[in-house]
Amino acid sequence: MKKGTLLFAQSGGPTAVINASAAGVIREAQKCRYSCILCGKFGIDGVLSENFADVTKMSAKDLRLMSKTPSTAFGSCRHKLPSVEADGEIYAKLLEIFKKYDVTAFVYNGGNDSMDTCCKLSNYFKSVGYPCNVIGVPKTIDNDLACTDNCPGYGSAVKYVATTLAEIAHDTSAYAKGKITICEIMGRDSGFLTAGASLAKLSSDGVDLIYVPERPFDVDDFVKRATEIYEKKGRCLVALSEGIRDKDGNYISEIKTTDSFNHAQLGGVSHYLTSLIFEKYGIKTRAIELSLCQRAAAHVASLADYREALDAGKTAVKLASDGKTGLMVAFVREDGKIKTSAVDLNNVANAVKALPDEFIAEDGAGITEKFDEYALPLIQGEVKHQYVNGLPKYFRG
Amino acid sequence: MKKGTLLFAQSGGPTAVINASAAGVIREAQKCRYSCILCGKFGIDGVLSENFADVTKMSAKDLRLMSKTPSTAFGSCRHKLPSVEADGEIYAKLLEIFKKYDVTAFVYNGGNDSMDTCCKLSNYFKSVGYPCNVIGVPKTIDNDLACTDNCPGYGSAVKYVATTLAEIAHDTSAYAKGKITICEIMGRDSGFLTAGASLAKLSSDGVDLIYVPERPFDVDDFVKRATEIYEKKGRCLVALSEGIRDKDGNYISEIKTTDSFNHAQLGGVSHYLTSLIFEKYGIKTRAIELSLCQRAAAHVASLADYREALDAGKTAVKLASDGKTGLMVAFVREDGKIKTSAVDLNNVANAVKALPDEFIAEDGAGITEKFDEYALPLIQGEVKHQYVNGLPKYFRG
Repeated sequence: MKKGTLLFAQSGGPTAVINASAAGVIREAQKCRYSCILCGKFGIDGVLSENFADVTKMSAKDLRLMSKTPSTAFGSCRHKLPSVEADGEIYAKLLEIFKKYDVTAFVYNGGNDSMDTCCKLSNYFKSVGYPCNVIGVPKTIDNDLACTDNCPGYGSAVKYVATTLAEIAHDTSAYAKGKITICEIMGRDSGFLTAGASLAKLSSDGVDLIYVPERPFDVDDFVKRATEIYEKKGRCLVALSEGIRDKDGNYISEIKTTDSFNHAQLGGVSHYLTSLIFEKYGIKTRAIELSLCQRAAAHVASLADYREALDAGKTAVKLASDGKTGLMVAFVREDGKIKTSAVDLNNVANAVKALPDEFIAEDGAGITEKFDEYALPLIQGEVKHQYVNGLPKYFRG
Repeated sequence: MKKGTLLFAQSGGPTAVINASAAGVIREAQKCRYSCILCGKFGIDGVLSENFADVTKMSAKDLRLMSKTPSTAFGSCRHKLPSVEADGEIYAKLLEIFKKYDVTAFVYNGGNDSMDTCCKLSNYFKSVGYPCNVIGVPKTIDNDLACTDNCPGYGSAVKYVATTLAEIAHDTSAYAKGKITICEIMGRDSGFLTAGASLAKLSSDGVDLIYVPERPFDVDDFVKRATEIYEKKGRCLVALSEGIRDKDGNYISEIKTTDSFNHAQLGGVSHYLTSLIFEKYGIKTRAIELSLCQRAAAHVASLADYREALDAGKTAVKLASDGKTGLMVAFVREDGKIKTSAVDLNNVANAVKALPDEFIAEDGAGITEKFDEYALPLIQGEVKHQYVNGLPKYFRG
């Protein structure tokens, strides 16, 4: 039976293992004998501009190397499709392109917005009777997709955050008199990644205070706690989400733009808070933004996460090949074991998962053991890299 | 023959492998049968306050684990001894303490200031006829100690910088339209570590512009180059030393304090420059400070560097045990091979090594292949860590 073309694209922010999903998709599509395998370059934008990479014959060797390479091998975009009602033309154009290339399966890898796009496209194809199997593959270091135990990309980001915070904890205890150190972690609306800082205690003295955006942040209370810890221990290590907000929902990182700190580009909330403490108390401080490293550090990727990402890609193609559509690959945890499943894209598209209450300490300044139990399985094992010239070898397409 | 006490201490900023030197010292001192092995806590401050850890019987297992742990296991300080003329009392006090504990060998591990302290102490003991073998062990991620091919700690920091910059280079090419990204690297006066960003090209598209403090930095010329590259490629990746200065020797990071940027704590030079470009041209920018990670990332330490650090510690004790004094362990390169040697502390104490001219591109905005040849041997091999709970296991004294 003729299988037609499988079209794949990556979307949203990169992760350390997003290319493992791509490798999983392509390898499985080769196995399933799709007549052609195309990757849209720079996400749905590449599909719209017919900017494709033909990977039908991509070698096993290249796939293996690509699977361990950070960032998106085929490029990404942040283009959320409008509704069919708002812009029917874009859907008509996509339909035309899908027909032109005989696309019978479409696999889209991304986070919330990408799953929304995936869902809209699936519903549109159903409504016009175009036979195309549309499957979403989850991916986000924010871990905020609904209907899944966790998202590929998250485990590696947590492993990086916990390893780095442990190393920073060691470093900041070098001197008899230390500093107040504030590490700023990605997560505009989700505290999942910042919560990962909690695991640093397994390999160091750990982090003293952890703040996530799921709880209102009180600047005065924070400063009081941090300075008290500093007075007692001679140092204080804090981890907080870039997206922490006050009780009225205002981002703390934006407060500075309303007072004398009028340069939005001059660092985020960590720089604001360290500056505040230094100016008020004269205590030495240091702000550290983990920045792109937390989603790009493939050299310290989690093997469990890598395997999950690879598996998510494979499963998506299997589902499509089996005639399924409108689904997202998901993960469920049963008796401590994580298994692959699938969920309706309509249930994922407009939902966001927040860090559960039971993972946040009652005082809002820490993370519970329940979180540690949840996160530990996701950071197990190390991806082995080939090192050339003393550096991990990465794919260069 | 009775050997007396060997006293060891760590000083200055931590590195990823400084504890390998400590392990080398202690292991060799055990072999050489010093009757007692003491570590001063928090450097020379711990010696002055008789705050010692007795490590005479530290186990091989603990030594191995400690050797792979970042930061200073025994604490550090930034206390540069005054001259004997300026403060004879402190020397008299040290002499008294050395006599009290029967210290016949003193090994001090650190950078420029520490070697100066080591040198002064050695000269003082000679002048008063106190028989103590004083040996310095080099350590600095700045790699700016004179009379040695390189310094333990530097190779691992370069490996981290090159790996991270390669990963950032992959990440920043994810979108069709990217940003101007500026990575700020440690090195107030030395460009050695920033030059390491040059090696990122071996595992990615590499870095577009590299600036070191050894050459005057012209803000306008930089902005012109960076924006031109951005217009051409859709992105631009820059690495620069925190210590870059203008032609009059003023730190660029301090210029901001003289204009509207009046909050010194709000990020360093990278935040200043990205802010400048964004405000002037509206181009999206991102500032990344590698911060403590570049000296603490033991999980990606260089095996060559680790072995050198271990060897430096061992060699120091061998020299002391052989009756040598007033020396610093050093490294020389002969026919591409790096060998251990020793140099007179007086020649090290007040000299600083700058990044050689031949390592800097003629236009001052890049690094030459000669540097790559110099640095590559220092980042070879990976230190194998024991992973527990998905994290590298580190020593907790």
